Amino acid sequence: QETKPTKFGKGIVNIVGKDSSFTMKIGARIQILGTAAWENKDGELVNPYSNMLIRRARLKFDGFAFSPNLIYKIELGFSNRDMSGSSLYTRDSPRIILDAVMKWNFHENFVLWFGQAKLPGNRERVISSANLQFVDRSILNAGFNIDRDIGVQLRHHINLSDSFVMREIVAISQGEGRNITEGNQGGFQYTGRLEFLPFGTFPGKEDYKGSDLLRIQTPKLAIGATYDFNNNAVRTRSNMGSFMITDDGLYETNISTVFVDAIFKYKGISFMGEYAYRDAEDPIVKNLDGTPTGQTVQVGNAFNLQSGYLFKKNWELSGRYSNVNYNQEITGKGLVQEYTLGASKYIVGHNLKVQSDLTYIDNEIGNGGLAYRLQFEMQF
Amino acid sequence: QETKPTKFGKGIVNIVGKDSSFTMKIGARIQILGTAAWENKDGELVNPYSNMLIRRARLKFDGFAFSPNLIYKIELGFSNRDMSGSSLYTRDSPRIILDAVMKWNFHENFVLWFGQAKLPGNRERVISSANLQFVDRSILNAGFNIDRDIGVQLRHHINLSDSFVMREIVAISQGEGRNITEGNQGGFQYTGRLEFLPFGTFPGKEDYKGSDLLRIQTPKLAIGATYDFNNNAVRTRSNMGSFMITDDGLYETNISTVFVDAIFKYKGISFMGEYAYRDAEDPIVKNLDGTPTGQTVQVGNAFNLQSGYLFKKNWELSGRYSNVNYNQEITGKGLVQEYTLGASKYIVGHNLKVQSDLTYIDNEIGNGGLAYRLQFEMQF
Amino acid sequence: QETKPTKFGKGIVNIVGKDSSFTMKIGARIQILGTAAWENKDGELVNPYSNMLIRRARLKFDGFAFSPNLIYKIELGFSNRDMSGSSLYTRDSPRIILDAVMKWNFHENFVLWFGQAKLPGNRERVISSANLQFVDRSILNAGFNIDRDIGVQLRHHINLSDSFVMREIVAISQGEGRNITEGNQGGFQYTGRLEFLPFGTFPGKEDYKGSDLLRIQTPKLAIGATYDFNNNAVRTRSNMGSFMITDDGLYETNISTVFVDAIFKYKGISFMGEYAYRDAEDPIVKNLDGTPTGQTVQVGNAFNLQSGYLFKKNWELSGRYSNVNYNQEITGKGLVQEYTLGASKYIVGHNLKVQSDLTYIDNEIGNGGLAYRLQFEMQF
Repeated sequence: QETKPTKFGKGIVNIVGKDSSFTMKIGARIQILGTAAWENKDGELVNPYSNMLIRRARLKFDGFAFSPNLIYKIELGFSNRDMSGSSLYTRDSPRIILDAVMKWNFHENFVLWFGQAKLPGNRERVISSANLQFVDRSILNAGFNIDRDIGVQLRHHINLSDSFVMREIVAISQGEGRNITEGNQGGFQYTGRLEFLPFGTFPGKEDYKGSDLLRIQTPKLAIGATYDFNNNAVRTRSNMGSFMITDDGLYETNISTVFVDAIFKYKGISFMGEYAYRDAEDPIVKNLDGTPTGQTVQVGNAFNLQSGYLFKKNWELSGRYSNVNYNQEITGKGLVQEYTLGASKYIVGHNLKVQSDLTYIDNEIGNGGLAYRLQFEMQF
Repeated sequence: QETKPTKFGKGIVNIVGKDSSFTMKIGARIQILGTAAWENKDGELVNPYSNMLIRRARLKFDGFAFSPNLIYKIELGFSNRDMSGSSLYTRDSPRIILDAVMKWNFHENFVLWFGQAKLPGNRERVISSANLQFVDRSILNAGFNIDRDIGVQLRHHINLSDSFVMREIVAISQGEGRNITEGNQGGFQYTGRLEFLPFGTFPGKEDYKGSDLLRIQTPKLAIGATYDFNNNAVRTRSNMGSFMITDDGLYETNISTVFVDAIFKYKGISFMGEYAYRDAEDPIVKNLDGTPTGQTVQVGNAFNLQSGYLFKKNWELSGRYSNVNYNQEITGKGLVQEYTLGASKYIVGHNLKVQSDLTYIDNEIGNGGLAYRLQFEMQF
Repeated sequence: QETKPTKFGKGIVNIVGKDSSFTMKIGARIQILGTAAWENKDGELVNPYSNMLIRRARLKFDGFAFSPNLIYKIELGFSNRDMSGSSLYTRDSPRIILDAVMKWNFHENFVLWFGQAKLPGNRERVISSANLQFVDRSILNAGFNIDRDIGVQLRHHINLSDSFVMREIVAISQGEGRNITEGNQGGFQYTGRLEFLPFGTFPGKEDYKGSDLLRIQTPKLAIGATYDFNNNAVRTRSNMGSFMITDDGLYETNISTVFVDAIFKYKGISFMGEYAYRDAEDPIVKNLDGTPTGQTVQVGNAFNLQSGYLFKKNWELSGRYSNVNYNQEITGKGLVQEYTLGASKYIVGHNLKVQSDLTYIDNEIGNGGLAYRLQFEMQF
């Protein structure tokens, strides 16, 4: 076999099997994160908090197996944050597998995915955590994203004109998130997404990367919308969040989630915006006799707007406004707003970078706060 | 060093160290499994159940170290099913290591194994889960196999005539299964196995692979028998199953397990049969004052018979009859019988295949059922 | 890219990226350990105990990223002993990551480390578990070492004369050990270490390896001293041991740890000695109302002296005396002394070796004992 030369950031090795019977790119990455934060009590910074951790440490394997039409992707996470979330539904074992998915291009522009992968949800979630514009994703994403699940996805794209591209994705999945071993609880989850790229596809798949590192010379825009219906969902955030436990097993209700998002890049300027909305048929979790357990589906909506400009030598300044507006009557939570200022130095693009941000948190109920983060990312 | 060319399914890379000081083949595999099942209540299918999961996701490393006479094998499992089974005896950490064993060919036909590996138990268990004829192993195996353990094995083979080969294996192990950190509980486990290959060894080690993918042109037969004695065993299935906990620590009793198995292959036809039997000196788990705790050693016997025919283009149809007949007086369980019809498409042998089977379950006590499974396997 | 030839023990592969944009050495190792032990009850050996396990099974990745001045090291552990120690502070997930550290040589002899790595504590701890003179480290180390933590280290070395080398290290870390996800508890941990090498550096970094496998032809000596101050520490052994839990959250007290150590090698003779001392401002853990919880900081001191001689064909005999002398008034524990005789066969140095030792344990309070260990180590 041939082991193709790779540059830093393009895989540890790129293997081409004998007679081109397969390919494999092996990648690895780590993120080292430091945080300092304070609560804001009537203008005074109190309760200082600090945290340093290996935020992510991953191995990635991708390529094709036997035929170029059969692509695989496997991603494993070994950091404690990535592996957390074990429960009796994962056999109390850590959640090491992130992705394990086959992508079969069975006909023209049609690709069938099967296995565990990210659902076609909000853009910010689908952008790899290695390729973000800020240290980490926004509170919109933390509260509303639909992450990964196991199932099938059918993907298609079509050129509506010379440059106007449309992508369509439909997915059916179990609806309880990744690494579930104990079978489907409640019903299935159905996701549909449409994407429009009126000025054509982005070079280097940059519609799914933060910042405009390529300083794209003609304006590029992508608009996306997702509708997700989780039939008889059993977790407070659709396929994420706590399992809704009652004295009679898991509580089930239909949960709908909607995302609308857009990304724009031009000559070092980048902009991304997202809106998320979640509702449930009956968001109050109840025991058999109708008494509320105290858990509720996290219904509400959220906004995220962010923009950045890439200066010379790949220094970037960026800003972000995010809010999360849960339905207060149901969840008892108030509006949270975050104002973030970011500074990044991309040494080798997203593959070797230092990112930093400062966030002012405004909390309708209780204390807000201030948080400073500094992160180092290395990706082979 | 030299990196030998590999074809798909023959390892990701095959490394030969400088001056041939070592070799290493690195392999990886995943299995994606979907299941749909129903209970059979007086002829009506009720309680539908579905499950989709990454059943197995593994990394394998094997080759020789320093001398071709010193072979190693390391296999790691990252799927939640593979890692499950943690307990205070594994320090509450996941069971990632499957195999970690050295095989030292110290003299002629004698090979000494030390480390953690599969015991020389029933053939169906020793066949890799990548190389099965059906989606997964039978209920005989689920109830009676002796899986992996840590210890030593002495292996020898001899040619009794020009073609008649006999293999002898003896093993001493801790007797509590794999990944135990807290020392030997109860006594040791002793296993002996004899194998007879009257028409010579199978090409490609096919006596430990399901199906007859090589369409062997002269009939090949292997017969094996294992006797396993677990002195003062502390788990309900010898070195498997639940730990037998009493108010005075672990309950200990001698458990014997016997396997007789055979495999036959000829021109695309394959047949495998197994019989398993387990008995215990005192199978009723008791507290210090003699009162039963409710746990029992899973004593009884089981049969498995399966056969398949490989059609053109490597399509296979196969059938399986399995039963498990626990001693009802002791375990309270009735006879379970399964009738399975399998269909497999071997795209690149066992390395890229789609397998499917339909099982009718007959349960003497309680409801039987129907189960349909579809599995994709990819192995580098 | 170029894949440099490697010999057994020098990495599985050594990758040099295109245009020398990175390097990566991938390593792997396993240790298979067997133990037999007895308690010594008034001269009689009672309560026999045996244990066989995969003691360590690790993957290592190291090299430089983008610039030779930016070194990384990642080490993952998959044995159950290595992964153990999960708690709510690690999100109940296993502790797979051992090292994940960047080493930035930003100016002349100055190197800045950031990430998770071994602290500059006692020499025996910093010597890799692959390169020990005995089967495992001493009881001094088990009781007093400060292991790994996350934070920053500044390292510098200087030539005081033609041959006299001094190394200085200062570190600031979180103070709760490795793989903590939930932020800094209590205060930070500050560590300083000085090392003196009066006869120059050791060839092959042998001052951090057990035994004198190079049979160094001129005497080499290294002396080191560490002072560690863990401000408001929350675990019984500084950043190790049990979390000190009270009815009002974690108990906090300042803990100081001191190490003095030396290593000497000459023509096959090796000697290593260490002294450890730990004290705490208030070692008695108390609830809010002042009542003791029963936990105490493990204050006291310990000695370790060990020596070995390497015979022809790399057979080694070695001896070790270790004691641990906790403050009995506070901890309720008596003096423990261990006398160990070791025999090692280094087949390919530390990379392929068999080690064995016999330890007589003398316990001031309660029974002593006898322990025999046999270990196989293989390192790629």
